[in-house]
Amino acid sequence: MPNRPESASVLLMCRWMAYAGDPILVEELLFRPVHSLIDQSLHSRLGATTTNGDGFGIGWYGERPEPAVFKSVHPAWNDRNLREVASQIRTSLMFAHIRASTGTPVQRSNCHPFRYGRWLWMHNGSVASYRDLKRDLMMAVDPSLYADIEGSTDSETLFFLALTFGLTDDPVTGVERAVGLVEDVARRRGVEHPIQMTVATTDGVSMWAFRYSSEGRTRSLFYSTDVAKLRELHPEVEVLNRLGTEARVVVSEPLRELSGAWNEVPESSCGIVRPGADEIRPFRPEGAAVPG
Amino acid sequence: MPNRPESASVLLMCRWMAYAGDPILVEELLFRPVHSLIDQSLHSRLGATTTNGDGFGIGWYGERPEPAVFKSVHPAWNDRNLREVASQIRTSLMFAHIRASTGTPVQRSNCHPFRYGRWLWMHNGSVASYRDLKRDLMMAVDPSLYADIEGSTDSETLFFLALTFGLTDDPVTGVERAVGLVEDVARRRGVEHPIQMTVATTDGVSMWAFRYSSEGRTRSLFYSTDVAKLRELHPEVEVLNRLGTEARVVVSEPLRELSGAWNEVPESSCGIVRPGADEIRPFRPEGAAVPG
Amino acid sequence: MPNRPESASVLLMCRWMAYAGDPILVEELLFRPVHSLIDQSLHSRLGATTTNGDGFGIGWYGERPEPAVFKSVHPAWNDRNLREVASQIRTSLMFAHIRASTGTPVQRSNCHPFRYGRWLWMHNGSVASYRDLKRDLMMAVDPSLYADIEGSTDSETLFFLALTFGLTDDPVTGVERAVGLVEDVARRRGVEHPIQMTVATTDGVSMWAFRYSSEGRTRSLFYSTDVAKLRELHPEVEVLNRLGTEARVVVSEPLRELSGAWNEVPESSCGIVRPGADEIRPFRPEGAAVPG
Amino acid sequence: MPNRPESASVLLMCRWMAYAGDPILVEELLFRPVHSLIDQSLHSRLGATTTNGDGFGIGWYGERPEPAVFKSVHPAWNDRNLREVASQIRTSLMFAHIRASTGTPVQRSNCHPFRYGRWLWMHNGSVASYRDLKRDLMMAVDPSLYADIEGSTDSETLFFLALTFGLTDDPVTGVERAVGLVEDVARRRGVEHPIQMTVATTDGVSMWAFRYSSEGRTRSLFYSTDVAKLRELHPEVEVLNRLGTEARVVVSEPLRELSGAWNEVPESSCGIVRPGADEIRPFRPEGAAVPG
Repeated sequence: MPNRPESASVLLMCRWMAYAGDPILVEELLFRPVHSLIDQSLHSRLGATTTNGDGFGIGWYGERPEPAVFKSVHPAWNDRNLREVASQIRTSLMFAHIRASTGTPVQRSNCHPFRYGRWLWMHNGSVASYRDLKRDLMMAVDPSLYADIEGSTDSETLFFLALTFGLTDDPVTGVERAVGLVEDVARRRGVEHPIQMTVATTDGVSMWAFRYSSEGRTRSLFYSTDVAKLRELHPEVEVLNRLGTEARVVVSEPLRELSGAWNEVPESSCGIVRPGADEIRPFRPEGAAVPG
Repeated sequence: MPNRPESASVLLMCRWMAYAGDPILVEELLFRPVHSLIDQSLHSRLGATTTNGDGFGIGWYGERPEPAVFKSVHPAWNDRNLREVASQIRTSLMFAHIRASTGTPVQRSNCHPFRYGRWLWMHNGSVASYRDLKRDLMMAVDPSLYADIEGSTDSETLFFLALTFGLTDDPVTGVERAVGLVEDVARRRGVEHPIQMTVATTDGVSMWAFRYSSEGRTRSLFYSTDVAKLRELHPEVEVLNRLGTEARVVVSEPLRELSGAWNEVPESSCGIVRPGADEIRPFRPEGAAVPG
Repeated sequence: MPNRPESASVLLMCRWMAYAGDPILVEELLFRPVHSLIDQSLHSRLGATTTNGDGFGIGWYGERPEPAVFKSVHPAWNDRNLREVASQIRTSLMFAHIRASTGTPVQRSNCHPFRYGRWLWMHNGSVASYRDLKRDLMMAVDPSLYADIEGSTDSETLFFLALTFGLTDDPVTGVERAVGLVEDVARRRGVEHPIQMTVATTDGVSMWAFRYSSEGRTRSLFYSTDVAKLRELHPEVEVLNRLGTEARVVVSEPLRELSGAWNEVPESSCGIVRPGADEIRPFRPEGAAVPG
Repeated sequence: MPNRPESASVLLMCRWMAYAGDPILVEELLFRPVHSLIDQSLHSRLGATTTNGDGFGIGWYGERPEPAVFKSVHPAWNDRNLREVASQIRTSLMFAHIRASTGTPVQRSNCHPFRYGRWLWMHNGSVASYRDLKRDLMMAVDPSLYADIEGSTDSETLFFLALTFGLTDDPVTGVERAVGLVEDVARRRGVEHPIQMTVATTDGVSMWAFRYSSEGRTRSLFYSTDVAKLRELHPEVEVLNRLGTEARVVVSEPLRELSGAWNEVPESSCGIVRPGADEIRPFRPEGAAVPG
C-alpha cells in the first residue's frame, strides 16, 4: 500500500464533478473555474488540508454511444496531456474524478471513472474493512460480469454489484440493492458503518448522483442552480453567459463561491439530471439476496 | 543514457506519419491500417528488427489555430489513453511519431512532435556526435527563442535553428539554413556526416517533408498516391472509399502493401503538401552565419 | 487491453532469469552478460523477433528474510533507477523477469516477481482463455489468502493457488496441485491445453524451476553447468573467475553462447537448486479438489 | 508548465534532508521519523499548506566512490520501489529531496539530487525570472561541462556554475562565485532578488549546506545537535540509541519535535559536516567574471 503516513489517512478524500448540458470545452470545466477540480486536487477548502495526488480521470461522450475515458496515475496538475486534450474536446456530458487511494495500488485500472458499455461510474468514499469483505462481494458479482473487473478497488466492485442488480435498467434500484448487499455482508462479518459514498453514474443521456452512508454522515454533495435563475441572481458574472441554459453540474465541493449557486443534495438521496425535469428522491438501500 | 546494449543501437529508428486531408478519426490512421504506426512501433519491416519503445506523440489541429499535442514515454502499444483519445478526435491534419532514443533521456519533453505556436515538427534521424556540437548549436538559436526549448534532443534543437532562420516565413529556406549551420559547425569540430534526417513540419494548413543526409544515404520516406487514382487502381480496397479525395499521407514506411500506393521522396528533396497542387523540390542546405 | 496488433500477439513471451550462489552485484547479472536479460528484452534470438516492453521486475534477498521487489512498467532498457540500484545491490539470490502482457493491464501490480512472505514467484507462459476460467480459479484460492492478490494476471493467480495447496511446505506438490486444478477447471469449461509455463519460485534459500505445458510443448528453460566444470571447459572466459563456485543460473534463454554451459530442463520436470545437491525430478500435475 | 493554479504557486517549496554518520538503513531516515520527509511531502507544517508532489529523489554512497541516485516523478508516498529499496540499503551518507516544480517540466532529469562524478547537489528555492536569465547562465557554464547538463532547472544550472567555479576543489568558493555570477547577470537584466536557496552538496565524505537569498529572507534550514548530547537531554527517546554518535542530519524542516534537537543555520551561512570538527562560516557571494 502507499507509504502514506497514518496522520494523513483520515484527511484524504476523492473529489468528483459531473457536467451535463450544452456542448462545452472540457478545459472550461476542469481549469477555468475559480476553485476548479484541478485546484481542488491541490488542497481542499472543506476541512481536509491535504492533497489528492493518486490519480485522476475524465470520461466524456462524443463520437459514439460509448464514452471515452482518459485516466492517469499522475497528479492532475502535472499531466500535460490532460491539458492538451481538454483544450480540444467538446462534450455534452462529462465526469471528472480525482483520487486519493485508501490502500489499493495507484494504477490506471484503479482510477475513476469506471466504464461498462455506455455507462460511467465514479465514487467518493469507501467500503470499510474492504479486505475482509472483498471475497464475499466479488463472489456476489454476476459471473458473466466478473471478468470485466479490471482493478482492485471497492469503488469498482460496488459498480459491478450495481450492474449485477440491474443498474442499466433501473439505476436507483440497482444501487439500492448493491448497497443493501454490502451492508448485509458487513453485518455478517461484524463490520460497522460499511458504506461511505457519493456516487455518480450515467448512460450518456441522464445522470444519477447518490449521497449515502451507513452512518448517516456523508461527505458533501452539491448540484448547481438553474443557469437561467443564476443569471438573474448574478448578472455580473460573465461566465454564466457562456454556459447554456441546460447546464447542470454536480460536485463534491462548489467550484466557486457564488451565493445561490449551490444546493446540497440531502443525506440518503439520489438526484437525477435528465432532459426535461430533474428530481431528487430518497435513497433506501434494501437487503438483497445474491441473484441466482 | 538508456541501458540499451551496444548491439541494438544501430538498429533503432524513429518512425513518423503525417496526414492531411478530409477530417478523419485519429484511430483510423493510428490503429486500422494493416501495418499501422502502432504496429511499426513493435517491429519494423524495412531492415531493423527491433522496437521503438521510447515514447510516442501525436499532434493534431482542431478547435484552434494552435495544435494540441499528446505525448508520452509509454510504448505506444501500451498507452490506453492514446486509444481512447484516438477514438474521439477528428482532424484534418495530424502528425504521429514513435521514438527510439539515441541517448538523451526518455521523457515527455524529448518526445516528438515539438510545437511552436501553430507549428509542429518531427524528425527521424540524428545529429552525429551531438554532445560535441550541442553548445555551439544551442548558442546559434535566437536568444528570443532559446528559453522555449524544453528538452535535450538534437531534433528539438534542429527545429529551433530552423525557427531561428525563418521557418515560419519560408520553411524550406529555414531548414536549409539550419542544416547548413549544423554542417558548418560539424566541419569545424571534425565531425563527419553530421545530419541524418527525414523531417516533417506544418502550420496546420500545409505540410513540408524533408529527406536529406550529409552522406546522401537517407532513411526511407514515402508519400501516398492520389486517392482518386488509387481507387481506380484498387477498386477492391474498401478503406479507400472512407478516405476523402484530398487525403495525403507521408510516412517513414508504407502503412500497407499496395502496389502503386507509395512513392519514394527522393534523396535531398522536400515535398510540399498543400491545398491545391503539391510539389517536390530539391533540398540544398546552405552554410549560414548565425543571424545577428 | 493493450493496443497490440493481432500479428504480434503470438510472438510475445516473457523472459526470466534466476540466480543463486555467492553474493554478486545485481548489475553483473542484468547488464554484463553478452545476451543479458536486458538485451533479451529488446529482441529474442529463439524465434520471436519482437520485444518485451510491458514491464520488468527484480526480486532479491538481502537485509531481511523477506525479499525486496523492484518492479516497473517502463521497458527495462529505459529504467535508469534499475541501473542505479543494480550497481549498488549485492545478493546471493535474485529473480529477474521481463514481461510481455497477454491482455491484462500493464501496471506494477501485474509485473513479476510476485511476493508472499519470504517467497517469490515468476512465470513465463499463460493460462489459455483465462477470462473464462478466472472466476472459478479465484474462488479456489484459500479465503485467507484471497485479499492478498493485488493484480489481475493468470500468473499471480497460479501462485496463489500453489500457496493454497501448500507451496510453502512442499513447493513441488503445491504447484502440481495448482496446475492439476487449472486443468480440471479448464476441462469442465471446454478449454483445451490450458497451461503453458516455465515457473520459478524461491524462499530465499532454495529455488524451484518448473517446465510444463498441458500440450507437452513448453517454451525453453535452461540451467547452467557447474562453474568449476565450466572453468575447465573454458579457461579463456574471464567472467567465470568472477562467479563463485556455488553460482547457478536458470534462464528462459542462454545468457551467452558457450558450449557446455547450458542444459535444457526437460519437459514436465522440476529442477531444484539448493545448498548441497541439486536435482531434477518429474513434474506430474494432479487433479485436486478445492481444499475445504 | 504544470497546470498549477495561480493561487497555489506561492506556497510550493521543495524539501530536502541530508544525513551523514554511521551506516543506517535508508528507510530509518525516510519513513520512520515522526515528521519524516515522506510525511512532509504530503503537507508542510512551516507555513505552506500544500503538497510536494512533483517528484522525489535520493542519492547515497555505497559500493563505489560515485553515488547512486534513485529519482522519480511519482509522488514519494506512492512510489513502492522507493520503499522496497529503502528497506535494503545501508549507507553512511544520504541525500533526499522532494520537489515542487516552479515551472519546468516534471521529469526525472529535473529531479534532485543532481550528480557529477562523486558529487551530489540538491536545492530548495529558485532563481527568479529564470527564463530571462537562462541563456546567459548556461553560457557561463564551462564548455567542457555543458553537455553533461541533462535537465532544464535553475537548480541544475546553479550546480554546473558552481562546478565551473571549482566546486570540486573548494565548494564554498565555488558556490560563492556561482551565486555572485547569477546576481551579476540578474542585475544586468533588471531582475531583483534573484536567488533564493538552501543547498546541500557532498563528495561522499563531507557535506556542505548553504543558506542564502539575495533578499536576506531565506527559507528554513536546520542541523541536528550532537547525538551524544541529545541522549543526555532526552534519555527517554529510544531512537537516539539506534543512531550512531557520528550522526548528523541537515533538513529544511525538523523531522520531529524535540527540544534542543534542531539548530537553525543562520542567514548567509554555510555549514560543513565532516569527519572531525564541523563548522559554520559566513557565506559571501562574489561577483565573478566568466572563467576563460
